[in-house]
Amino acid sequence: MDYQSLKGDEVKELLPGIDVAILPLGAVEFHGEHLPLGTDNYLAEGISAKVAEKINKTIILPPIFYGQVWSTFAYSGTLTLSNETLAAIIKDIGLSLKKDGITILAIINTHMGNLVAMKEASRVLYEEGITVLYLTYPGSKEAGQGVLESTRVHANYFHACEIETSYMLYLAPEHVNMDRASSNIPDFPLEFDYTPTPWIEVTDSPVLGDPTLATPEKGKIIIEAVVNDIVKIINSVRENHSH
Amino acid sequence: MDYQSLKGDEVKELLPGIDVAILPLGAVEFHGEHLPLGTDNYLAEGISAKVAEKINKTIILPPIFYGQVWSTFAYSGTLTLSNETLAAIIKDIGLSLKKDGITILAIINTHMGNLVAMKEASRVLYEEGITVLYLTYPGSKEAGQGVLESTRVHANYFHACEIETSYMLYLAPEHVNMDRASSNIPDFPLEFDYTPTPWIEVTDSPVLGDPTLATPEKGKIIIEAVVNDIVKIINSVRENHSH
Amino acid sequence: MDYQSLKGDEVKELLPGIDVAILPLGAVEFHGEHLPLGTDNYLAEGISAKVAEKINKTIILPPIFYGQVWSTFAYSGTLTLSNETLAAIIKDIGLSLKKDGITILAIINTHMGNLVAMKEASRVLYEEGITVLYLTYPGSKEAGQGVLESTRVHANYFHACEIETSYMLYLAPEHVNMDRASSNIPDFPLEFDYTPTPWIEVTDSPVLGDPTLATPEKGKIIIEAVVNDIVKIINSVRENHSH
Amino acid sequence: MDYQSLKGDEVKELLPGIDVAILPLGAVEFHGEHLPLGTDNYLAEGISAKVAEKINKTIILPPIFYGQVWSTFAYSGTLTLSNETLAAIIKDIGLSLKKDGITILAIINTHMGNLVAMKEASRVLYEEGITVLYLTYPGSKEAGQGVLESTRVHANYFHACEIETSYMLYLAPEHVNMDRASSNIPDFPLEFDYTPTPWIEVTDSPVLGDPTLATPEKGKIIIEAVVNDIVKIINSVRENHSH
Amino acid sequence: MDYQSLKGDEVKELLPGIDVAILPLGAVEFHGEHLPLGTDNYLAEGISAKVAEKINKTIILPPIFYGQVWSTFAYSGTLTLSNETLAAIIKDIGLSLKKDGITILAIINTHMGNLVAMKEASRVLYEEGITVLYLTYPGSKEAGQGVLESTRVHANYFHACEIETSYMLYLAPEHVNMDRASSNIPDFPLEFDYTPTPWIEVTDSPVLGDPTLATPEKGKIIIEAVVNDIVKIINSVRENHSH
Amino acid sequence: MDYQSLKGDEVKELLPGIDVAILPLGAVEFHGEHLPLGTDNYLAEGISAKVAEKINKTIILPPIFYGQVWSTFAYSGTLTLSNETLAAIIKDIGLSLKKDGITILAIINTHMGNLVAMKEASRVLYEEGITVLYLTYPGSKEAGQGVLESTRVHANYFHACEIETSYMLYLAPEHVNMDRASSNIPDFPLEFDYTPTPWIEVTDSPVLGDPTLATPEKGKIIIEAVVNDIVKIINSVRENHSH
Repeated sequence: MDYQSLKGDEVKELLPGIDVAILPLGAVEFHGEHLPLGTDNYLAEGISAKVAEKINKTIILPPIFYGQVWSTFAYSGTLTLSNETLAAIIKDIGLSLKKDGITILAIINTHMGNLVAMKEASRVLYEEGITVLYLTYPGSKEAGQGVLESTRVHANYFHACEIETSYMLYLAPEHVNMDRASSNIPDFPLEFDYTPTPWIEVTDSPVLGDPTLATPEKGKIIIEAVVNDIVKIINSVRENHSH
Repeated sequence: MDYQSLKGDEVKELLPGIDVAILPLGAVEFHGEHLPLGTDNYLAEGISAKVAEKINKTIILPPIFYGQVWSTFAYSGTLTLSNETLAAIIKDIGLSLKKDGITILAIINTHMGNLVAMKEASRVLYEEGITVLYLTYPGSKEAGQGVLESTRVHANYFHACEIETSYMLYLAPEHVNMDRASSNIPDFPLEFDYTPTPWIEVTDSPVLGDPTLATPEKGKIIIEAVVNDIVKIINSVRENHSH
Repeated sequence: MDYQSLKGDEVKELLPGIDVAILPLGAVEFHGEHLPLGTDNYLAEGISAKVAEKINKTIILPPIFYGQVWSTFAYSGTLTLSNETLAAIIKDIGLSLKKDGITILAIINTHMGNLVAMKEASRVLYEEGITVLYLTYPGSKEAGQGVLESTRVHANYFHACEIETSYMLYLAPEHVNMDRASSNIPDFPLEFDYTPTPWIEVTDSPVLGDPTLATPEKGKIIIEAVVNDIVKIINSVRENHSH
Repeated sequence: MDYQSLKGDEVKELLPGIDVAILPLGAVEFHGEHLPLGTDNYLAEGISAKVAEKINKTIILPPIFYGQVWSTFAYSGTLTLSNETLAAIIKDIGLSLKKDGITILAIINTHMGNLVAMKEASRVLYEEGITVLYLTYPGSKEAGQGVLESTRVHANYFHACEIETSYMLYLAPEHVNMDRASSNIPDFPLEFDYTPTPWIEVTDSPVLGDPTLATPEKGKIIIEAVVNDIVKIINSVRENHSH
Repeated sequence: MDYQSLKGDEVKELLPGIDVAILPLGAVEFHGEHLPLGTDNYLAEGISAKVAEKINKTIILPPIFYGQVWSTFAYSGTLTLSNETLAAIIKDIGLSLKKDGITILAIINTHMGNLVAMKEASRVLYEEGITVLYLTYPGSKEAGQGVLESTRVHANYFHACEIETSYMLYLAPEHVNMDRASSNIPDFPLEFDYTPTPWIEVTDSPVLGDPTLATPEKGKIIIEAVVNDIVKIINSVRENHSH
Repeated sequence: MDYQSLKGDEVKELLPGIDVAILPLGAVEFHGEHLPLGTDNYLAEGISAKVAEKINKTIILPPIFYGQVWSTFAYSGTLTLSNETLAAIIKDIGLSLKKDGITILAIINTHMGNLVAMKEASRVLYEEGITVLYLTYPGSKEAGQGVLESTRVHANYFHACEIETSYMLYLAPEHVNMDRASSNIPDFPLEFDYTPTPWIEVTDSPVLGDPTLATPEKGKIIIEAVVNDIVKIINSVRENHSH
């Protein structure tokens, strides 16, 4: 159910039965020549829709399209919120939902830069009795093994690569231009993981890996696993909270 | 042009020619039985699209769907950001755009509660050389005279009434259920305008006036006037800034 | 009763019977050649004294002489507080009064720039059970019709004009030099109301209109209406709160 | 010169010649049966006027009537600002004056609780090239020796006692009721100076000492010494800054 | 070189030649029956000393003994700073060092909870031209393979287990009581990694794994690898910054 | 008892019997040629150890080595926290201790610059039911009379002089180099105590007085008096709080 489209009667009838609100959260970020600025947002909305199909008593909140983007901010088109701003948005939404009795907020997030703000806000909301789930592709690592052909360029980051491009080919193919996909394997300095380093100091393109290997099939396998994991996690929380 | 859908090449080619970014801003707020929670968002997106058709060298940013809603917060389904949070979002977006040389941010706003945050953020961004336009139905008052049949229930507020419902019938009729529209004329206490007063202390329904008088034609007349005014204001700013 | 002048016995005897504290709030702002920097403060004190004469069980707090002044800050002599600072003052005063059982704070304000801070602080204090009234010339618009000769230069702003000069001629004539009054009709750009615009970008003098038309009689008519309205609003709040 | 009363011409002619702004700062605080709540404010205004008579090229700003009052907050009638609020006011005023070229701000303070906020704001303004003088009865200790008859009840605090009452008898006798003056010698616990202790935990009356010994002559001797010291300090700063 | 012990002459002679300041950062946290509350601090100091032996032109700053501890806060003896507080400390220290020309701050951290604050502060200091290295056992994962016998209980967390106890046996054996070591394998709920979960909701003891397998030899192998990695990273930064 | 060294069993057994936590607080600050940067820290730790010997049911927390240093910041090697940062640390520690039932926090402080932050944090913690003692050499003034030979250079400040050097010769003689001690008597401008003045504007060396007169015997007499006073104050608080 789309929260925004509910009219008065529906609000009053349905909200009391809802216990989980799904919040798609992405970012506006340069994603190379073949992917659009809104890549993370298209993915967050796509996964959220699939999750909502599989669980009942839930609504999908309007997405937050702006994320925290530090590492790739220098690339054209990237927009960013500060961690404080993003955490404040999540906190305000959580407190608003609590007023109507909804105390589980499941954030379907697709952008690594949002992790800190999600966690900070979640801890604040925890003190208010609100359970926030921060869900950034849970289960994708396991699901990707045996499916992905390229080795990861970096242990923690992926960006506009075989993985993410496959997700887009599955969830939003109309926004992908594979003709413009090309591999990029930056050479990271030893200190890269241990000091703030805008990627532009390391590589002209923020693509991390080889998107030409992407296929919708790969995307489907991993995203379906992710969706299943999210559903399991939400149901586990529901169960543990109802005791 | 939809900012989110731009891919790498387009970003690099187009952004240098853009001088105005349009930011739709609404809210999630209870709007009576006949209108949806996302009313303000549908209107902000609708007006933004019409404005973008009439001016060149512009892009439409992804909307901010969450607004500051104090007066009607107690009604079911309403969500709110604090003024500080909303102002921070606008400030962060403005500073991000500046990085790519876009220094006019035109906020197409449809929710009164956002005025303070818009103005606060605008003054901060002014110091950074960024011109923010806060555009909340400019010209609608004049355009509505002679068109609207009901007298306004309150000098400053309108909500889910003949005016706003007409806007929706013109811009997003699929989200209106006129069968459920009904008039509501609250009796405001003398101090209403001079002290913080949640509307629920005054009226069970936040509808302010008579939505049954709404028609798409009325909406069209006023919204077209608003769009024209916005276009004129943006062009005036462009001209004054280019000197 | 002047709060400051109360001695120990009086404090203990009188405070328990007080339910409304009046707080004069103005600003220090350039007001043209004929009016002093403290114009808003003289007016706030003048109106407060007249209101206090007409209601019982009230005290007048020491004035806040500093206001939030953004638009005319560039003119010589103008001083400003930030919105955050002014809101903090009001909040701190409200919480202090609550300690002694006074839960209605009536701010007699004479400066438009203070509106945001007053409203923000009022909402915070509302959550603490304190009723703040923000009273900026209530009823003056209606009272001015038929009295004032000049048309307003701007829909929302008035400054050092026929209106304000008339107020001063009535309440603080010793601070007016009519010999130096002269009309000023700035030409506002189309975007003036929609983007932060220091007035000095538009006009060398912040006088908005024609102060030469001012008379003490006009001032008296409007100010008396304002005082009556304020008294009515305070009494209405008292009554509604006592239920 | 009273800053508030300056009209446009005067502002433009006089401000360029001013280098020191005097800011009276007091508090609203319970001062026993014989002194009024505004005691500190009457004293700050009184001393400021005397200082202004003795130095040229200066103006007196409108007073800040509200101070930071922690220790005596529990007594009826006392009002308080937080340290943050008071520091923000001073900072905002300092920055405003800088705009018009006035970079020495001499705060004539009469309330101990304001020391922290004054110092904090002064350090911030120091970084902005503004010299703040925080002047809380400089030279009074020395001047009081040989004049005062009672020994001080506490090494650092005096309140509504022989000292302060003498000041009032000299500067604002119309606000003193000596018939109600009576001595109060609280018995401070050993930890009093080393842990936050609201005075009401120690004594029913915040009078610290014996006000019955107060005379206008004593007040005159000390206050004149204080005024002379302030004048010397201001002139020393002027000289050192002009090199 | 111990920063604290430097006297005036030494400060003036040595600081100009220093380019890296080492900051040990730990936490005070319950670490089971066999390890002390200061475990993380002993480790941070131990590693820092070994690093300092291997690089020149460096000083060791006094440690920060307090860290951010959320997950284990409920266990007795655990103390915590907020993320904001810890980030502020690091920021203030970084800015202080910059005054004396030291622009590389290498934080030797031993507590996972400090990661967010370190990163936040580092990004702020990056804007000030200061390079912060946040070094939390770099290289330990690789070095531990083939050495450690137990499988990790959790992918991201280790605590008072074979790993950390081995570190202590190598670096601070006088603070270990192996007689009290015992294994603890909690059963984590599915949502554990996706929502804030104080460990005490999951397990009575925060020990994660089997500390009885710990040996000083294992500790030595891993810590020496960590020290070598830290030295390499610092030298790499030095080299890249000197170009 | 050293808090850090407590292991699990000890924590559980001992903490319930503890009612006072001792927190050594110093600073890193240039102290002339003969004393080290960590002078204040060595002293805070030394006094804390002596106090802990004389009272039971107490633990010594790990020290805070960083203080607020404004006046001498410009001298090489000095590091500083802001007042806000230092107050936040104290507040966080106080709240953490409260969790384990320890509600008296005795700060053994040796640096004047920390006074404001200690007091601010103490008032916040007072509202939480936590008693903070801020103990900066209590009783030293009285004890110093008859012992010290030099007259104080400044009424409020002492630094690296006969007094402080004597303390060091008694508590940490291994960190003193008397061969490098030399007298320094700055000439303070009249406004020194009334406006923020970095000492470097007044004197090349921050030594205030004549350290060559220092002896361990003088240090012993004063420090023992200070320790006795601290013990008395703590016991007085304990007694008053147990009623």
